[in-house]
Amino acid sequence: MIPARRASDPETFAALLDVVRARVDAALAAWLAPKVEAAGRIGAETAAAARAVERLAIRGGKRMRAALVAAAYEGCGGAGDGAIAGMLAVELLQVYLLVHDDWMDDDDVRRGGPAVHVELRGVLGSRKLGDACGVLAGDLASSYAQEALLESDAPAAHVLRAARVFAKIQEDVVSGQIAEMTAGSVASARAPSVEQIYALKTASYTVTGPLALGAALAGADEARVADVARFGRPLGVAFQLRDDLLGVFGDPTATGKPVWNDLRQGKRTALVAALEGDANGDALLRRVLGRADASDVDLEAVVRAMETSGARGRVEARLRGLCEEARGVLASMPLEGRARAWLEGAVAALGERSS
Amino acid sequence: MIPARRASDPETFAALLDVVRARVDAALAAWLAPKVEAAGRIGAETAAAARAVERLAIRGGKRMRAALVAAAYEGCGGAGDGAIAGMLAVELLQVYLLVHDDWMDDDDVRRGGPAVHVELRGVLGSRKLGDACGVLAGDLASSYAQEALLESDAPAAHVLRAARVFAKIQEDVVSGQIAEMTAGSVASARAPSVEQIYALKTASYTVTGPLALGAALAGADEARVADVARFGRPLGVAFQLRDDLLGVFGDPTATGKPVWNDLRQGKRTALVAALEGDANGDALLRRVLGRADASDVDLEAVVRAMETSGARGRVEARLRGLCEEARGVLASMPLEGRARAWLEGAVAALGERSS
Repeated sequence: MIPARRASDPETFAALLDVVRARVDAALAAWLAPKVEAAGRIGAETAAAARAVERLAIRGGKRMRAALVAAAYEGCGGAGDGAIAGMLAVELLQVYLLVHDDWMDDDDVRRGGPAVHVELRGVLGSRKLGDACGVLAGDLASSYAQEALLESDAPAAHVLRAARVFAKIQEDVVSGQIAEMTAGSVASARAPSVEQIYALKTASYTVTGPLALGAALAGADEARVADVARFGRPLGVAFQLRDDLLGVFGDPTATGKPVWNDLRQGKRTALVAALEGDANGDALLRRVLGRADASDVDLEAVVRAMETSGARGRVEARLRGLCEEARGVLASMPLEGRARAWLEGAVAALGERSS
Repeated sequence: MIPARRASDPETFAALLDVVRARVDAALAAWLAPKVEAAGRIGAETAAAARAVERLAIRGGKRMRAALVAAAYEGCGGAGDGAIAGMLAVELLQVYLLVHDDWMDDDDVRRGGPAVHVELRGVLGSRKLGDACGVLAGDLASSYAQEALLESDAPAAHVLRAARVFAKIQEDVVSGQIAEMTAGSVASARAPSVEQIYALKTASYTVTGPLALGAALAGADEARVADVARFGRPLGVAFQLRDDLLGVFGDPTATGKPVWNDLRQGKRTALVAALEGDANGDALLRRVLGRADASDVDLEAVVRAMETSGARGRVEARLRGLCEEARGVLASMPLEGRARAWLEGAVAALGERSS
């Protein structure tokens, strides 16, 4: 994917992201255009769904997951264009997940534009139809993601290993989403911890999965694929902890997401879990968690309690610990080319980002 | 999949279905048990979703799609157990589609038990959570379907070709569902015909796709795979026309579905399309189509009009024509083993069934 080393080649993760973003944006546009055309040959409504998927796919994202595919691919000795199918696949997988997620969370805005189900409500002139076709548009993106990966012209055995990785990512992320959304619904002695859920619902498709995909496409055997992915778990969990922190303490103009949304939606984030058990914190949480109409005064009180109780500090310390753990795993991994520098940069970019 | 010819071997499609049903029921149970166990290690709620998928998968279906995989596999020279992964995959794909479909159509009952979103509403004690986790349970079944296929121990190149077929099936069926659900929502000069929609939303995953999967797993090249699938289009459309007829004129105790449901849900079936343009029929249709509270008197009037206007007769004639077309394609196809007899039987079983 990334051409052989030249003076202008990316040596840092930030530079890799720039190269990958330009490449993936163009490749996604080229890949999706004939799909939208094919949908148009069926009918105007199917075209509208395909176009909504296309718009969301092209409208952005940092392409961090695609960059991790590229890094693992080079790190495992891959050369040429063999990783591009995996890069498209992880970005389309994210579109699929976001489409279903936004419908479930009733989020109207995504990547600075309408969520897919919201766009389709408008086009189809019906809330019910828009929601149903939103879910179907997500399903459509899921088929696109699989197709994009399977079109890889890497050797069949490599593509097959990558496809197995890809299916397992989906099982993990969906299992984690169910666990997060329903935590505590069923009386049960054993509930998953926040970090267990984050490993499944975030680390899987954000770090572990993209790394495993890149390694598999490069021809790494199963043991090597698992080894490369090992680095992804602590980093992926750290990424989600940073997300939790930004959701409460971040700058909405930088993150593009309204602040305190997680609290209003009742998400049991790591910050919320860290505040639980604090008597004052518990009382405050009950007034805001899952209440769309929670007052700013109450929300500000919860945010203050997260500071004063040490909840924020504990989450930040854990985040630093996970980044250290990831760096430790990385140091012990054999990697070729520029992959080590890129992945070192990825730890900072994912764990220490501000947007 | 089907052992080498012995005195007790299935020679007819009905006998093949019996063998396949026993085999697939057992294989699905064995394949899903560890998945439910793995979900249980995450938490009680994830286990509930996985168990709902398992129950629906095991609770039935005729396993007709799996039998078509087996027939095409033997027909293209496949031997041994190489088709079983494809057979599991098409049955799990159907579970995924049914789960999302039932939520969209607001159907409470499936295969004589609760629809998955309805089961999860009960387990989770919330309509909203049940619906969201119903959609996620469908996504989980989608990942299972992919995994089951990719576990095939057929040569990598064959599995890869089958996986490509499988992803395209998903694109087609979802595109067709969007087209059917939204027909006419967007002002457009060109709307798809009922048969175009049926080719996408039904023929693809019911006949064409399973045949192509079986052929690919047997090692057929792309041209052969396409050739085998050619027989599936007319038969798959005929299957859906029969479904339409059974939905109005069938015996609900045999079909397991409430009669006139399609009319109440506002589906523009082939029967409805055949009645359109008839002045009396149009007036009657307006009183029932898409009205959950349509009276039995009005529904009976529509049903009578379908008889007297000749709409039923035209749909039945078209169905016979499609079955003839399928038989014609079949006669020109080179096929090994018992596949020809099985597929001749499939035309009768799919086009001329009463349940």
